[in-house]
Amino acid sequence: MEKILLILTYIAVIASAISGALEARKNEMDIVGATTIAFATAFGGGTIRDLLLGRTPVFWVLNPGLTIATFIAGALSYYRLERLSGGLFLVVDAIGLGLFSILGATYTLQLELSPIVAVLMGVVTGVFGGVLRDLFCNRIPTIFRHNTELYATCSFIGTCIFIFLISINIDHLLASVIGAGTIFTMRLAAVRFKMTLPAP
Amino acid sequence: MEKILLILTYIAVIASAISGALEARKNEMDIVGATTIAFATAFGGGTIRDLLLGRTPVFWVLNPGLTIATFIAGALSYYRLERLSGGLFLVVDAIGLGLFSILGATYTLQLELSPIVAVLMGVVTGVFGGVLRDLFCNRIPTIFRHNTELYATCSFIGTCIFIFLISINIDHLLASVIGAGTIFTMRLAAVRFKMTLPAP
Amino acid sequence: MEKILLILTYIAVIASAISGALEARKNEMDIVGATTIAFATAFGGGTIRDLLLGRTPVFWVLNPGLTIATFIAGALSYYRLERLSGGLFLVVDAIGLGLFSILGATYTLQLELSPIVAVLMGVVTGVFGGVLRDLFCNRIPTIFRHNTELYATCSFIGTCIFIFLISINIDHLLASVIGAGTIFTMRLAAVRFKMTLPAP
Repeated sequence: MEKILLILTYIAVIASAISGALEARKNEMDIVGATTIAFATAFGGGTIRDLLLGRTPVFWVLNPGLTIATFIAGALSYYRLERLSGGLFLVVDAIGLGLFSILGATYTLQLELSPIVAVLMGVVTGVFGGVLRDLFCNRIPTIFRHNTELYATCSFIGTCIFIFLISINIDHLLASVIGAGTIFTMRLAAVRFKMTLPAP
Repeated sequence: MEKILLILTYIAVIASAISGALEARKNEMDIVGATTIAFATAFGGGTIRDLLLGRTPVFWVLNPGLTIATFIAGALSYYRLERLSGGLFLVVDAIGLGLFSILGATYTLQLELSPIVAVLMGVVTGVFGGVLRDLFCNRIPTIFRHNTELYATCSFIGTCIFIFLISINIDHLLASVIGAGTIFTMRLAAVRFKMTLPAP
Repeated sequence: MEKILLILTYIAVIASAISGALEARKNEMDIVGATTIAFATAFGGGTIRDLLLGRTPVFWVLNPGLTIATFIAGALSYYRLERLSGGLFLVVDAIGLGLFSILGATYTLQLELSPIVAVLMGVVTGVFGGVLRDLFCNRIPTIFRHNTELYATCSFIGTCIFIFLISINIDHLLASVIGAGTIFTMRLAAVRFKMTLPAP
């Protein structure tokens, strides 16, 4: 099971790195920009979580394998990929969103902090990579815009469900699968049916 | 007195959250953007201070009450407020500026760091919430622009006075009131008389 | 030797502060903006390194002399300098790039972290001050743009050489001089011969 988790983490990180590098290419950046944006997208959410919680050195500093994978994924996709099939990207990105959110909440609960903070950290871990990517590209983050399909909301709801299940003593692995699964399914449904949040 | 301080903190945080949410609405963000900007405006200054000083987990992670208040204030003002009366907003924001600045300096002195750093941390705590809000909204921070009325300057001068009073052993509470009062009064005067800093 | 290092650090920090303040002036900021950008440019890279590694309070909080020097350099250059001679600026900035990169790698190795992370931290320390400066000025960071002469690349290669020399037990001082010298020379050569990275 440990191994599956590790594989999923690599998939999520690499998916984010690719998304960052392609975005950098669209913005006429060079390979320095592309790998930096790849790092920011892949590690941004978890890094902000670790800094806020005081878990330092941050996670990727302690895991050179992830760092190398991100670097290679970013560089390769900058030079070799024209674009990613929209459908494939959506699925891989949704896996990352689900997995990162549950990981963020889990680490927070391990520090015995309040469930409210755990939900927040789940959402931060899930979505802030993309927010940093957009800030570096000098635009208002996509997920904040009013015509964007549900993204942070999926992370929020799935993390709430996960924490509720933990609080009634459901097995941690089962709770993780249900939480991440909810986020994954909800995100795909949101894009399919163009679900957005109500405007004022 | 503890209680008064807590009430003032809530007022300052809620005022910042409202300012952030309304700014998000002006920038055509959805409720995710609005609550994120509300958090960044309310907690940004104190968070950067805590990170720089190594006071982790950061303050709001340890205080779920503040987190909930910010979330509700952000969401309510996004959906329900058209705009805030300029005068009311100015007063509440100036209270926040004064209070946050003195709190930032106080925490720094508690760690026995130099008075110069305490002044810097006072200003950072007072003004960086608004700076983060502006960065997320993709524009040059308002308080950096050359036609803006004194803002960081009020925080700087009031914090210097506060630290001077502490250094000559004035009672901490009295010094706080004088420091925060100076910042509050000076900020209102700056807006009233359109006081700006000299250009080169 | 300690003394030479300290003098070089002051030169690098002051050069960065001047570059930040002049950039702020070009963007029609006031003195608050100018000193803030000066701080961000001078201390940004080292601050991000310290936060990621968990070395808090961050370095400048413990060194009020550097803080005062940055403040004065920022304020003076905002009010008194029209512009800096391009050649002088290039040389001083290249000294800073070399020195900051080697310092960042050294601190990381001291914490017994992996050489890969040490290279990354060298680059981060060397270049992120300028990245933060550009973000505050609301534009895509210069060093990410595809027509920019080698900058992060110089830091990357010089830091790799430095770490290789350390790993084969060369004297630390000699390795530092060779590493920083490579970065310095390569940066000047890159500007002189308009060397850029290959586009996809």
